[in-house]
Amino acid sequence: MPQAQSLTDVSIGVCYYPEHWPEAMWPEDARRMREAGISRVRIGEFAWSRLEPEPGTYDFDWLSRALDTLHGEGLQVVLGTPTATPPKWLVDSMPDMLPVDRHGRPRGFASRRHYCFSHAGYRRECARIVKALAETFGQHPAIVAWQTDNEYGCHDTVLSYSDEARLGFRHWLRDRYGSVAALNDAWGNVFWSMEYRSFDEIDLPSGTVTEANPAHRADFHRYSSDQVAAFNRVQVEIIRALSPGRDILHNFMTFFLDFDHYEVMKDLDIATWDSYPLGSLDVFPGDAAHKTAFMRTGDPDLQAFHHDLYRGAGRGRFWVMEQQPGPVNWAHYNVDAQPGLVRLWGLEGFAHGAETISYFRWRQAPFAQEQFHAGLNLPDGEPDRAFHEVKQLSQDLASLGPLGASASARVALVFSYEAAWFLRVQPQGRSFSYVEQVFAMYRSLRRLGLDVDVVGPDAEVSGYALVLVPSMPHVPERLAASLAACKGTLLIAARSGSRTASHRIPDNLAPGILSGLLGVKVTRAESFRPHGAVPVRYDNENYSFDRWREFVVPEAGVEVLAETEDGHPAFTRKGRAHYLAGWPDDAFLNGVVERLAREAGLATGELPAGLRSRRRGPYRFVFNYGPAAADISPYFPASEFVLGQPRLEVGGVAVLHTDVPANG
Amino acid sequence: MPQAQSLTDVSIGVCYYPEHWPEAMWPEDARRMREAGISRVRIGEFAWSRLEPEPGTYDFDWLSRALDTLHGEGLQVVLGTPTATPPKWLVDSMPDMLPVDRHGRPRGFASRRHYCFSHAGYRRECARIVKALAETFGQHPAIVAWQTDNEYGCHDTVLSYSDEARLGFRHWLRDRYGSVAALNDAWGNVFWSMEYRSFDEIDLPSGTVTEANPAHRADFHRYSSDQVAAFNRVQVEIIRALSPGRDILHNFMTFFLDFDHYEVMKDLDIATWDSYPLGSLDVFPGDAAHKTAFMRTGDPDLQAFHHDLYRGAGRGRFWVMEQQPGPVNWAHYNVDAQPGLVRLWGLEGFAHGAETISYFRWRQAPFAQEQFHAGLNLPDGEPDRAFHEVKQLSQDLASLGPLGASASARVALVFSYEAAWFLRVQPQGRSFSYVEQVFAMYRSLRRLGLDVDVVGPDAEVSGYALVLVPSMPHVPERLAASLAACKGTLLIAARSGSRTASHRIPDNLAPGILSGLLGVKVTRAESFRPHGAVPVRYDNENYSFDRWREFVVPEAGVEVLAETEDGHPAFTRKGRAHYLAGWPDDAFLNGVVERLAREAGLATGELPAGLRSRRRGPYRFVFNYGPAAADISPYFPASEFVLGQPRLEVGGVAVLHTDVPANG
Amino acid sequence: MPQAQSLTDVSIGVCYYPEHWPEAMWPEDARRMREAGISRVRIGEFAWSRLEPEPGTYDFDWLSRALDTLHGEGLQVVLGTPTATPPKWLVDSMPDMLPVDRHGRPRGFASRRHYCFSHAGYRRECARIVKALAETFGQHPAIVAWQTDNEYGCHDTVLSYSDEARLGFRHWLRDRYGSVAALNDAWGNVFWSMEYRSFDEIDLPSGTVTEANPAHRADFHRYSSDQVAAFNRVQVEIIRALSPGRDILHNFMTFFLDFDHYEVMKDLDIATWDSYPLGSLDVFPGDAAHKTAFMRTGDPDLQAFHHDLYRGAGRGRFWVMEQQPGPVNWAHYNVDAQPGLVRLWGLEGFAHGAETISYFRWRQAPFAQEQFHAGLNLPDGEPDRAFHEVKQLSQDLASLGPLGASASARVALVFSYEAAWFLRVQPQGRSFSYVEQVFAMYRSLRRLGLDVDVVGPDAEVSGYALVLVPSMPHVPERLAASLAACKGTLLIAARSGSRTASHRIPDNLAPGILSGLLGVKVTRAESFRPHGAVPVRYDNENYSFDRWREFVVPEAGVEVLAETEDGHPAFTRKGRAHYLAGWPDDAFLNGVVERLAREAGLATGELPAGLRSRRRGPYRFVFNYGPAAADISPYFPASEFVLGQPRLEVGGVAVLHTDVPANG
Repeated sequence: MPQAQSLTDVSIGVCYYPEHWPEAMWPEDARRMREAGISRVRIGEFAWSRLEPEPGTYDFDWLSRALDTLHGEGLQVVLGTPTATPPKWLVDSMPDMLPVDRHGRPRGFASRRHYCFSHAGYRRECARIVKALAETFGQHPAIVAWQTDNEYGCHDTVLSYSDEARLGFRHWLRDRYGSVAALNDAWGNVFWSMEYRSFDEIDLPSGTVTEANPAHRADFHRYSSDQVAAFNRVQVEIIRALSPGRDILHNFMTFFLDFDHYEVMKDLDIATWDSYPLGSLDVFPGDAAHKTAFMRTGDPDLQAFHHDLYRGAGRGRFWVMEQQPGPVNWAHYNVDAQPGLVRLWGLEGFAHGAETISYFRWRQAPFAQEQFHAGLNLPDGEPDRAFHEVKQLSQDLASLGPLGASASARVALVFSYEAAWFLRVQPQGRSFSYVEQVFAMYRSLRRLGLDVDVVGPDAEVSGYALVLVPSMPHVPERLAASLAACKGTLLIAARSGSRTASHRIPDNLAPGILSGLLGVKVTRAESFRPHGAVPVRYDNENYSFDRWREFVVPEAGVEVLAETEDGHPAFTRKGRAHYLAGWPDDAFLNGVVERLAREAGLATGELPAGLRSRRRGPYRFVFNYGPAAADISPYFPASEFVLGQPRLEVGGVAVLHTDVPANG
Repeated sequence: MPQAQSLTDVSIGVCYYPEHWPEAMWPEDARRMREAGISRVRIGEFAWSRLEPEPGTYDFDWLSRALDTLHGEGLQVVLGTPTATPPKWLVDSMPDMLPVDRHGRPRGFASRRHYCFSHAGYRRECARIVKALAETFGQHPAIVAWQTDNEYGCHDTVLSYSDEARLGFRHWLRDRYGSVAALNDAWGNVFWSMEYRSFDEIDLPSGTVTEANPAHRADFHRYSSDQVAAFNRVQVEIIRALSPGRDILHNFMTFFLDFDHYEVMKDLDIATWDSYPLGSLDVFPGDAAHKTAFMRTGDPDLQAFHHDLYRGAGRGRFWVMEQQPGPVNWAHYNVDAQPGLVRLWGLEGFAHGAETISYFRWRQAPFAQEQFHAGLNLPDGEPDRAFHEVKQLSQDLASLGPLGASASARVALVFSYEAAWFLRVQPQGRSFSYVEQVFAMYRSLRRLGLDVDVVGPDAEVSGYALVLVPSMPHVPERLAASLAACKGTLLIAARSGSRTASHRIPDNLAPGILSGLLGVKVTRAESFRPHGAVPVRYDNENYSFDRWREFVVPEAGVEVLAETEDGHPAFTRKGRAHYLAGWPDDAFLNGVVERLAREAGLATGELPAGLRSRRRGPYRFVFNYGPAAADISPYFPASEFVLGQPRLEVGGVAVLHTDVPANG
Repeated sequence: MPQAQSLTDVSIGVCYYPEHWPEAMWPEDARRMREAGISRVRIGEFAWSRLEPEPGTYDFDWLSRALDTLHGEGLQVVLGTPTATPPKWLVDSMPDMLPVDRHGRPRGFASRRHYCFSHAGYRRECARIVKALAETFGQHPAIVAWQTDNEYGCHDTVLSYSDEARLGFRHWLRDRYGSVAALNDAWGNVFWSMEYRSFDEIDLPSGTVTEANPAHRADFHRYSSDQVAAFNRVQVEIIRALSPGRDILHNFMTFFLDFDHYEVMKDLDIATWDSYPLGSLDVFPGDAAHKTAFMRTGDPDLQAFHHDLYRGAGRGRFWVMEQQPGPVNWAHYNVDAQPGLVRLWGLEGFAHGAETISYFRWRQAPFAQEQFHAGLNLPDGEPDRAFHEVKQLSQDLASLGPLGASASARVALVFSYEAAWFLRVQPQGRSFSYVEQVFAMYRSLRRLGLDVDVVGPDAEVSGYALVLVPSMPHVPERLAASLAACKGTLLIAARSGSRTASHRIPDNLAPGILSGLLGVKVTRAESFRPHGAVPVRYDNENYSFDRWREFVVPEAGVEVLAETEDGHPAFTRKGRAHYLAGWPDDAFLNGVVERLAREAGLATGELPAGLRSRRRGPYRFVFNYGPAAADISPYFPASEFVLGQPRLEVGGVAVLHTDVPANG
């Protein structure tokens, strides 16, 4: 039975827009936030037109009063910089700051994110407003953290084909290659007479007659990603100087691959992300039956994946900055959450190590683009269901007491933004999707009840018991060394090591730098249209490679664990290093991962569909995403229930005391 | 048995292009029109390049001779103004008159409708040519009516993103809001710092990074609609002055929502529309089985809906200006009509109150864009099947004698162009389609054999026995009062009253202005992907809400007639005011409508699929759209057959004497 | 049993890019080519940036050394002109040389084919570089042929909407019509006031509000096709003068209709084409089951069709210039070939009359756009499977000895690029596809084992035993006369003769110029959405017209061989001239073709699916494309096997001595 506990070490937050509401409502809003158990409030991130209503004329008084009001209730504030929404007068003063789409059309004012990351003038304007804000509020006692901008890259804004981006790209290439001859050689521009005589001849890879050189496109991805990091750095440096002791963070998104989040995080303290389980389920790949089955609870692994991803990117520190409270407005179809899920998503975030779960938004807005986006309160001020669930969540946290730190997992999944770019640039088959493959691997681990660390390409992985590397065309030397040094079990997916940093085929062919480790050589690859799979026999069962398969020549001594029907190695082992020479169907992948987990000494046992678990500190959390109620006793025997009970309804959560880590 | 009758009070027309044919053919054409029973001929509407072959040089002689030839055979003429097809020299003299697509690309010359409604210069040119025509032919005895332009908005030309539209929009906003502060407040521009300091900062809502403010978009719809009305008014005022005593009309289209037809009709005498049953069935929403079943007859309700819609818009006066005679050229797939349908469509138009049914076109053109569009005659001059069917139609009319006026129905369906814009601007679910919902409601009434008046949002509805209001986000005060005053039965669909005129959520939440009438409050809404429906139990049967459902809190005393499976009110009643809190499946909708029709004292009884009926004057007309022959006796017992007989083949028509109005 | 034979009269080639590899590798490459049985090498066609690295500065030395190296091994060279890949400095010197898409956007540098065929300046630059090359290498003993440019029209580059194209089009129209009045009359521009007062008013048919006049669009297709021919002619004239005695050729593509290949071939000696069976199967129309069944072998008729098409275009002389060796990089999905197919495709090309089959490419490129395109050798230099199959092919050829000339077939299929343009401009039904219809007819002949000549619209067909004319809206007078003179059996497809040269309906209606021959008049046509077919009764079986059907009035004496269910003639005969008044389903088409082949005195018998045959000289070749092994004895009895045996595995080839031509 749950016992009275000491104070929690995590917190609940909310997103609030004082500028949207009469000032007279602020005190009561603050009081009721506190009443719901909320202790942190994010404000300000879209308010530029109110902070600087005329060019150069600041009006910070209202914000000061809002901070004081929140502070008066003991609430801590995350102050957002307003640079995601430059006002019209600023855009009109330098129209070339607008982002440009791949057809060369400027993307105009009247929504948000209407700026090109490459634009130096806009960066200067951002520095100016951020400096003014940090000078004014840097020492305000309410402020515990700053958020830079909002959702970098949202609405497809990382790749901008502006004039300034073209000039910036040329400089960036000069820095990277030194000479144009080196660039021509690295890209292989002799092919199709694409050779340049000067960096000034190089354009952005858009509007070409047929596809541009993949090396050209890969470098433009790198350049564009670097601009996001540089743009962010400008603000961070100012805030660091003027608001010491506060954390600086940014709110990232779901399955967003257009820039390297690890790079941006080098300048930040905490990774946060915006969690919209139902909207995300609706818009990301998945079959109709899956989407219908989980439409009111969300994909059982999607939130957990991003918690683990951003915990890694944040070097252990992460928040959910925006948590869905009910229907959203932006998916193709927008359903309400099953009652209890608003609480479940919060508890799951904490179970994965979150410091703060912050709900979006305090009160549903009755105007503009997000009128259909629910909040904790209705537009007329009445509490909506989410308000009550958040209150329940705060009581749950109180009953649990300190959760402690999130322990490292024994399984690592290597995630690389560059891999996503390389595979996007040259998929070689319409169905090849990096993120789908990564997510399938993650799911195969999670259905075994395993805790997972998602780690970047620079991570040291040698200490893990099991390491999974999804398709990673370019494997950096450091990672290759770390994999070689690992005493644990390795699973390397097809296409890994198949390209150099310059997007060329390595001289020794794929898997290139991993050839010694894996003991195979890939001579040919093929991609399949739906229903064009090749059968694979493995472990006395029939599976298949769909989407992708490779023709592999193993060196002497390499064990062939599975073969395709036409007689080629499908799954090989050299020592503890395994290679999967294709895109396995789900059952095949599950079989392989279960075998390797067993070999790695990780207790395994398949959980029912939709039942997921995560350990934090003294607790094991268990979540039921449905579609059916489940008795969890067989999977977590002889445990003491701190919250919940053995029978978990859909949407239910159980928290168990655990001394023995189950499944690692 | 049919008896010899006195003269008809309706007429048959045809569209004719004398400029396409050698003048020597005109007299014989006119003679054969008369022979077929045709009495009205529309001409001239695309002939600008022949009326003004050089800038400022008119050549009206040929038109004069054509009028005289037609007049000589006793034919009455509708003269079209040629403004839908400005000649190349005019476009070249002011290229900025071209409409501009949402990507900013001008839409050029070489087809038709290549003008922007906002362009003042083009309006002046139109005034000039219309004035010249009206001065010349205004008193010509052949002319009974004028048609302004042709099919306003066809080919997506209402929304034009030209420079002149941008300037016009700014003026229009200034007129509407007075101050930019008022606009900022009405639109909620504080959201995302979209606030403007001047009307001159406001652009058209295109090319934004993500969706623009729905209030911004809704106002651009209103502005664009107003330009159509203003464009039309220029011509009307000239013709009124110079051709007194003639009707002025325009030919509208099928399911066309881009401008408010009620506004345009304020300046016109007769609403006419262009009826292409087979083409319309092909291009409008509907499943494949439905489209195949009716491919040669047309949707059983589509023509009737538009007859009723335009009869309402025309304050009782309407025509079909273009009636399909065989295959058309513009649908995705173009089939021939079942023999008999050309006649059926004509009779159905008259049954719904049409004064004139005019066939398009006299003779199939052997050149240019519409070579595959059938006519009453083949390109070689031989009569095609439609010629004979029209002749039969004229004999039918003679045998029926005067049809009298179309009586008011006892059922009203409220139709609003603004509702269509609001729901297009913010559908909140990909499948939410205003026109599909309206049409489903219309069909549910028609399958009960009920005559229906389609009425606009300004209509007085208090006298109807049954009023249906499809989703109408903004309900004007006058309509709200009229609904409140109605002693009949009301059915209000979900989303009605959910927005203010400024596209904001009302302070008291949906249904806003209808809250008192309905006694409910909507707290949340959701939209469903296919197969994501919520079950509803109603009247001991299982139904569902698909596409949409709302969470509704009823006030005390409101009766809950149906509940969703998860325990929320689905269908409520307060007095005679019913609210449907979602998008019902067809069976659910039919059940609801049948119940309300019964309660409203309207005799009901379901007709077989494809059998439809309409009363006019002393007659009840019955039409069989198929797919099977039907014995109509059970539905229309003890009636005297003026045309046809109890067994109606597919494509058959029966006309019965009726003193007792069946089903209202 | 195969016997030792004398030398072959055909050759194997390969595509080679010396500029991609260190010069030190060239000699060994050349030696191994010879070892594989290769005797011809194509080089140079993308090398402009290496041939002229700076404007006006040629570097031909490396090419000279490459030629010498190849010549030293006895290899014959096809030298490509590099005009498909102008270097960046050239594009920058005249940016208006870029092709322009239909939205008016220039299509930029950084891939290939970035030029507009209309651009006079670029034609001059091409003449300059070709002249320099021809002056230098015109007499080089290694060179046996020149290839102009590469794959004209690839990546949708024939239709360019550039300023220069607009000016060129106006001149072309002036030449064609003489006066603008004649043009207005021919196009029917009175329709919709599209009349022009001067050729200078005429724009390209893009960006119009709705579809432009089909005559306008058809003429723009003709103009654009003429520019390809003119562009090619510039190079041919220079090479003819400077490199006498060498063949000049170009490499065409699969199902490519954007220009008239017969016109281009008037200036060339040999038609060659690029054969990618697996990529082509993937990207061209076909249902999923078909694509899966043949995914590793290719469509059984696709290669044969193009062999026959280009043999006709080449007046008997054709090559395969690029033959697929394994997976390609450009289809939606890219699979590997079944082992043996690389050999099969080669033998099939020779069976159809090819002089040379040349494989693409010698060695897989480890950089740039085609990294995933297989070669005969892997990027690391090891031979890939294709290398060994090519070697086997050369041994097969040696064992067969001289193949002799390809005999004329007794069946002709008339193919017209203009027909494709007309049907594209005005399909009148979304599913009407000229190329699908042509290919269905070809397949129906091939499954009967018949050899086929594909002939152009100018061909003399009167000598054939059976002539099939797929839908040919405009039938030239000469062809009409040839058909009338033909003593063989004729099958004319629906829509033939339905348009004049000016894209008008003929005065006597369709089939216009063929009316006398066929004895029918088409009064109306219709197109069907899927499942909207009309049943047809023929030869005591039930079939259907889907996609298309016509209403036909036969003159007296015309025999109606099949009728639609609704009582209209479906298949008629007047003498030996048959008319098919719709788009038959496959079974119906097969039944019709089999009947006519029998009537034409051609032995027929249906081959198993995937089994195909072609005669050349003393041999009959038999190929098994699968999906199952087959015993070919019943179809080719009592023959002597030179290669293979009666049981043909999938991918197997048999070559039989034959004195009696089977099936013509």
